[in-house]
Amino acid sequence: MGISPQQFEQLQARIRTGTRRSPRASNAPPAPPTPASARRIVLGIDPSLRGTGWGVIQADRNTAVALGFGTIHCPAVLARSRCLVRIAEALRQAIRTHTPDACAIEGLFFAQNLQTALLMGEARGACLLAAAEFGLEITEIAPRKVKQAIVGFGGAQKAAVAQMVLRMLSLSELPEPDAADALAIALAHARDLFRPALTPRKPL
Amino acid sequence: MGISPQQFEQLQARIRTGTRRSPRASNAPPAPPTPASARRIVLGIDPSLRGTGWGVIQADRNTAVALGFGTIHCPAVLARSRCLVRIAEALRQAIRTHTPDACAIEGLFFAQNLQTALLMGEARGACLLAAAEFGLEITEIAPRKVKQAIVGFGGAQKAAVAQMVLRMLSLSELPEPDAADALAIALAHARDLFRPALTPRKPL
Repeated sequence: MGISPQQFEQLQARIRTGTRRSPRASNAPPAPPTPASARRIVLGIDPSLRGTGWGVIQADRNTAVALGFGTIHCPAVLARSRCLVRIAEALRQAIRTHTPDACAIEGLFFAQNLQTALLMGEARGACLLAAAEFGLEITEIAPRKVKQAIVGFGGAQKAAVAQMVLRMLSLSELPEPDAADALAIALAHARDLFRPALTPRKPL
Repeated sequence: MGISPQQFEQLQARIRTGTRRSPRASNAPPAPPTPASARRIVLGIDPSLRGTGWGVIQADRNTAVALGFGTIHCPAVLARSRCLVRIAEALRQAIRTHTPDACAIEGLFFAQNLQTALLMGEARGACLLAAAEFGLEITEIAPRKVKQAIVGFGGAQKAAVAQMVLRMLSLSELPEPDAADALAIALAHARDLFRPALTPRKPL
């Protein structure tokens, strides 16, 4: 199979400049701005009774920016039921401010014991309730899948996740660990949203 | 130790009529009506994702009446997060209608597995949140303690609990099992409220 003199010329040029083949890109006009319909605003939640992380990002197929993030601190002196009220109120406020259209929450697949699972479940219940009250589409995402999507390794450390979140969202400073986890969850879910799904997603 | 002729007379009369000693009751005026301050309105909750039971009773030291009760049904086709919204909404409606001043919720001390505990926790979270938003004092009560208080036996069957609830509250018909459990929780907690506590109650 031969190549034309023109193709040979292009190949030589690419070898000289060290660029990879992108014949279409060289002739094509610059990509049009992403239409608003292809942008999603995603709320990520990392639920916990004493320190729930949340993060809202706006994403399209190629880029993502953080709209807001934080950690909902509940000191140990605060009764459990009062923590739940604080968590739900803070999330409602974040939803009203940043108007997400999708929500992803970290799934729990391991707990030390029954009591831990129950407490974690209560915090998750308050988070799910707050998001569902606004009619948000909610998806559960496994911690390993988040790490895999962000760091490329399912067993990554929390600090590595936070560093990648800092870079991917061009943040000026490292977010608190729980907020960084929530932003990672939002980023991982946004990536899923812009990819055709092999199996239909089951809303939570 | 001898007895006076008057005491002998009283004893003879009690033996004839078969009554037990209550010298004060015989001479005392009828008990005054319970002041409003000594009445409590208690909301009992038996949380579950697909069938949360609730019941509100008004109780004083000796009597209790049901103000309202029901089961919040969530069919299997309803997404988990939407169930939580339905549960919280129904409980808020019950609280607005019957204005309880205390709330008792069944504690979970056994679950088949982690996933069950987590789902149960989510339902509990929605219930606790709804009650805490109204500033209710919330107490957790163990299932065995409820059965012990109502039937007198910690291992009692659900049907026996429902039968006792029917009698204690003079209901015209047997409530649904989940609603009966919730009324039993409210009754058991009301009994606790009118008894001096050996250890301070820790609010949930």
